[in-house]
Amino acid sequence: MGLAVSVPIAGSAPPVPRGHASASVVPGVDEAVEDALTALADLVRDDLAACNRVIVQNMQSQVELIPQLAAHLVAAGGKRLRPILTLACARLCGYPGPEGGARHVDLAACVEFIHTATLLHDDVVDESRLRRGLATANAIFGNKASVLVGDFLFSRSFQLMTSDGSLKVLRILSSAAATIAEGEVLQLVTQNDLSTRDERYLDVIQGKTAALFAAACQIGAVVAGRGAAEERALADFGLYIGTAFQLVDDALDYAADQAKLGKTVGDDFREGKITGPVLAAYKAGSEIDRAFWRRTIEQSEQTEEDLDHALVLMEQTGAIDATLARAVGFAERAKAALAVFPDGSVKRCLSGVADYTVRRAR
Amino acid sequence: MGLAVSVPIAGSAPPVPRGHASASVVPGVDEAVEDALTALADLVRDDLAACNRVIVQNMQSQVELIPQLAAHLVAAGGKRLRPILTLACARLCGYPGPEGGARHVDLAACVEFIHTATLLHDDVVDESRLRRGLATANAIFGNKASVLVGDFLFSRSFQLMTSDGSLKVLRILSSAAATIAEGEVLQLVTQNDLSTRDERYLDVIQGKTAALFAAACQIGAVVAGRGAAEERALADFGLYIGTAFQLVDDALDYAADQAKLGKTVGDDFREGKITGPVLAAYKAGSEIDRAFWRRTIEQSEQTEEDLDHALVLMEQTGAIDATLARAVGFAERAKAALAVFPDGSVKRCLSGVADYTVRRAR
Repeated sequence: MGLAVSVPIAGSAPPVPRGHASASVVPGVDEAVEDALTALADLVRDDLAACNRVIVQNMQSQVELIPQLAAHLVAAGGKRLRPILTLACARLCGYPGPEGGARHVDLAACVEFIHTATLLHDDVVDESRLRRGLATANAIFGNKASVLVGDFLFSRSFQLMTSDGSLKVLRILSSAAATIAEGEVLQLVTQNDLSTRDERYLDVIQGKTAALFAAACQIGAVVAGRGAAEERALADFGLYIGTAFQLVDDALDYAADQAKLGKTVGDDFREGKITGPVLAAYKAGSEIDRAFWRRTIEQSEQTEEDLDHALVLMEQTGAIDATLARAVGFAERAKAALAVFPDGSVKRCLSGVADYTVRRAR
Repeated sequence: MGLAVSVPIAGSAPPVPRGHASASVVPGVDEAVEDALTALADLVRDDLAACNRVIVQNMQSQVELIPQLAAHLVAAGGKRLRPILTLACARLCGYPGPEGGARHVDLAACVEFIHTATLLHDDVVDESRLRRGLATANAIFGNKASVLVGDFLFSRSFQLMTSDGSLKVLRILSSAAATIAEGEVLQLVTQNDLSTRDERYLDVIQGKTAALFAAACQIGAVVAGRGAAEERALADFGLYIGTAFQLVDDALDYAADQAKLGKTVGDDFREGKITGPVLAAYKAGSEIDRAFWRRTIEQSEQTEEDLDHALVLMEQTGAIDATLARAVGFAERAKAALAVFPDGSVKRCLSGVADYTVRRAR
């Protein structure tokens, strides 16, 4: 099926564009952590292969367009970051034990289905044409099919959870799904609004992104039957790396090499999305700068050259560095949340993944 | 809150447009059945009021746009047909018993949330501007908000089900939700395709519409703890009235008085949707008629006068009458499915609702 995990290869990263996402963002981190996601995926390799099989099995339907469209997104790559986290957190908590079990595999597939459904709907909502360097499903199959197949995968996820039979897992993931939708709507509401408070921006990214990371990690503890402290620790770990992940994503939208990321730099700018870098640049800017942001973000009046000027302002005000530094702070909190667990290879790799979410900015 | 059930008043119906949806469709049915839905709603009046409160409570969110948009659709009327069926089927099965209980109320709200979520997504997919005579949510709030609030209500529905705690109900409703999405995708796939087999058309309407009716009725038996025979009977009852309901809906799209229905006649025609009336008219048509259907439905080449000509062809070929007669057949099967239950007011009203789904064509 060619469902290998694709992760950035250490050393192969292209030069940092425009120089504002510097290596100094994560001081003192060993070069080896760049491979943390690969190492973690290796640790759960067999489970991940099983999870990929569950995913492929459960996206089948007699309505052929469904597996066709789903395959485009589900089976065609992606880092599988969220299901890997579920599998690894279950492992960290000692699941499966001596008597075996594959519940973590099915639940990891549920997490990926929810993620995929939200991606399909996001790309429709954002009118995106590219994701991970490929045409989006809506660009190929149309908005209608993307909305409906998203609904199908979402439903399938709850069917799978129901088969698993844990009401606790159902509560965690249905609650995460509602929080994701709230975060997405809040993002829509704050669009073009430079008066958005920073806490609201955090609400947006914790809703639309970090809530599912938190749930993905927490259910690792649930499936292992661990106590409230471990559940809380893993939920926090997920929440913090998810927050770091989205902060970096928002920074990269004003900094990344398009070919590397497979997304168009400046998407957020063109859509007038209110993200950390924009709020930071607006706050730190001169009156002339602020007029620029109001015209381009609030009034959506943009010319060809405006993105370049926006990137210059980002650099001048240190907005990207500030956003990345903030991400580092969340990655550190994520690692600290793991303190309740004894040291070991899985814990070390999870810590490494916290750093990876920030290091991918280079 | 003004959440009264709105149903057609017997005797107030406008004259049948174009004369092809005739009163003779349901021979021998007493005039009183026209009020069947009102009578059923009256029987479960207190439960329905409680259900409306659960709906309003659970569509709340700190993100204000969510209750605003949801209120437009959830709280602004509608027949509440599906939750009424859940409440009535629970009552038919003896729930709540002497010890009380309100599970049917919460689950009826779940059913309505799933219905509302699919309506929101349908209107985006169909680019509809009117529903029940009002501007659609997407027309007022935009497609993006409609997609995301649909996702929210869908998630909320599963949160509510999880609180209820019945894995059986979760299985029934998650499976129905997946079937709905499959039916909608299948409808998309068959669009503009006059070679669509009739069985596929039935798959579409049983998926997109009847599956939720079936689930809504079945969980009435589940919540009452009744056996497999009663569950099966109510699932069949729901499936058949849902099928009749959609057949009539498809017929009305070529026949109804727009002001009465609150929808635009000819929507399906303009979208090139493959429905029962079109398949029947195409099958029964002359070679010249078929060329007309191929041009208008398959090639989507339509002029101003084409809808009128389509309506003439529908009448000439008896396609509307054939579709309505078929609906009557399903309504009869629905009533027959209730045979396992002893006679009583709830059963009589449910039978009346089966007739109502067909009689609303007049």
